[in-house]
Amino acid sequence: MSPYPQTLEWIGDAEKGCLRLIDQTQLPDVLTHLDCSDVAAVWDAIKRLRVRGAPAIGVAAAYGCVLGARSGNLKESIEYLSTSRPTAVNLFWALERMKNLESEDPHRLLTEARAIHVEDAAMCKAIGENALPLISAGSIVMTHCNAGALATGGMGTATAPIYLAHERGISFRVYANETRPLLQGARLTAWELSSAGIDVTLICDGMAAHVMLDQKISLVITGADRIAANGDVANKIGTYGLAVLARHHGIPFYVAAPSTTFDLSLPSGEKIPIEQRDPDEISRGFGRQTAPKNVRIYNPAFDVTPHELITGIITERGIIQPVNEQSVRWSQNT
Amino acid sequence: MSPYPQTLEWIGDAEKGCLRLIDQTQLPDVLTHLDCSDVAAVWDAIKRLRVRGAPAIGVAAAYGCVLGARSGNLKESIEYLSTSRPTAVNLFWALERMKNLESEDPHRLLTEARAIHVEDAAMCKAIGENALPLISAGSIVMTHCNAGALATGGMGTATAPIYLAHERGISFRVYANETRPLLQGARLTAWELSSAGIDVTLICDGMAAHVMLDQKISLVITGADRIAANGDVANKIGTYGLAVLARHHGIPFYVAAPSTTFDLSLPSGEKIPIEQRDPDEISRGFGRQTAPKNVRIYNPAFDVTPHELITGIITERGIIQPVNEQSVRWSQNT
Repeated sequence: MSPYPQTLEWIGDAEKGCLRLIDQTQLPDVLTHLDCSDVAAVWDAIKRLRVRGAPAIGVAAAYGCVLGARSGNLKESIEYLSTSRPTAVNLFWALERMKNLESEDPHRLLTEARAIHVEDAAMCKAIGENALPLISAGSIVMTHCNAGALATGGMGTATAPIYLAHERGISFRVYANETRPLLQGARLTAWELSSAGIDVTLICDGMAAHVMLDQKISLVITGADRIAANGDVANKIGTYGLAVLARHHGIPFYVAAPSTTFDLSLPSGEKIPIEQRDPDEISRGFGRQTAPKNVRIYNPAFDVTPHELITGIITERGIIQPVNEQSVRWSQNT
Repeated sequence: MSPYPQTLEWIGDAEKGCLRLIDQTQLPDVLTHLDCSDVAAVWDAIKRLRVRGAPAIGVAAAYGCVLGARSGNLKESIEYLSTSRPTAVNLFWALERMKNLESEDPHRLLTEARAIHVEDAAMCKAIGENALPLISAGSIVMTHCNAGALATGGMGTATAPIYLAHERGISFRVYANETRPLLQGARLTAWELSSAGIDVTLICDGMAAHVMLDQKISLVITGADRIAANGDVANKIGTYGLAVLARHHGIPFYVAAPSTTFDLSLPSGEKIPIEQRDPDEISRGFGRQTAPKNVRIYNPAFDVTPHELITGIITERGIIQPVNEQSVRWSQNT
């Protein structure tokens, strides 16, 4: 049995089947699944973060196209799904690929969506193999948010070398930043890694600098939502600060992401749209009001880490290192 | 009427009076007061953070001694109160001062406790006056945790120049980091500043780096729980990371604290005891469980910022700048 969770899968055939997702908003309390039988349900699941993580969003959107074709409005469905979240480029990539099939046959679309899913899992595995040498006995890895199995159709991106190292009996430890406001690190990363028997310790985001020094972090690995042509990385808010802290402490800072995360049309990170989310996520994210009512709140979901702070970008093809426009373009053209 | 909250006050006389505190664990939902009529209640209020902030803890402990003397066990009360929280040096300073009176007369002790309280308020005001030139029209100040009126017997330490600048009609803005795990920034700083009509925006701790860049932060001001002889500062977890981020962005980083916060017996920050707190603060601080049960959690309450990262330490006597052993010893001997 796989040590990591199966985030999404298509159940049944193209005609009557549905997209089954782990409802990540319910973790870590309960592991529940959500069956999406129409495009609106997929859009809603992406919007509400029931499924999240750039690669998983792409796979979910691809399956969503099958549902759209089935109800006879594929084109509108593609448009609609593209409005669910603005930052992750994999969403647009997957929708484009489905559109380029120029088919409205649900069977044909399902075959393509399944191919995207299988390729995503293979990309995760390849990222894991490429990053595996970075983890050795005694390593202490820090990660942020969830670039785990739950964020992909496979074993995750940042977590892929973690699962592989664990499988190979390497003894190492992980620190997971809880990742406010939505606590993906606490709810998802700590859950999936501890479920797999991996030695993971949860901390608050503000503890990262102290832990880097005090616990002697060996390396930081995060995921990415979009990577510009010069290697600037948009990822979950907090990533940029971590990269600055890692640099200050002389700790290598890696980003793990499949090639589908690159957006070579953007020369740098400056132009990456940063999603602003509901202030309630900060003031009452977990049931009770924890900030004064009506206080002004700023809630950017992502930040941009300039390539100069990134030691290497681990893709399914290898590690891009050093990170700059030349190395990124070269890696993505070969 | 004072624009800032009255955190603690002695109600009544030495014989029958009590220490009335704002119960800070109930903020920002409701403003409730807690009357402490015995030492156990004061100990509990400090331990459970109903009253917190290094200067306020000192004042509360001083009033606690009045209650101890009244019940005929001053010596044991002082011992007991000293076990309530280990990091803030003001606690030990205030207890020592009460002990040095060599009196068990509640009236005499109350006079001294009141003197400590009044002096604390005066120190806050002086810190505010000394720091006021740092805030000018258009300034954007970032602060962490709550070094506010709620943390002191007066207008706060880090917030003192903020209240004074506001009073003088200077137009500026404040970003308050929410400060996980206990959200003192969200619950307390955002509450007291917005209640006073100050333009404050709440963010999550992991957003600080992005906001420094994106919103062009002018300066960072935090409080301190203990300052070593070389100027290393122990303060709420997250302060050290903020100082690193400020340095990276070329933003001045100030610490505001009364002279009672210095512990010249410690040559550097390395020896400052760091309180480890209950993992539940992280895993179920919002009321419901937000991390997997039984996952390992690390919860240090403080970190140490080395003096090299601190632009200046603002005390009631002036600004210590640059911060090093020589300047600290000189400032504290004059």
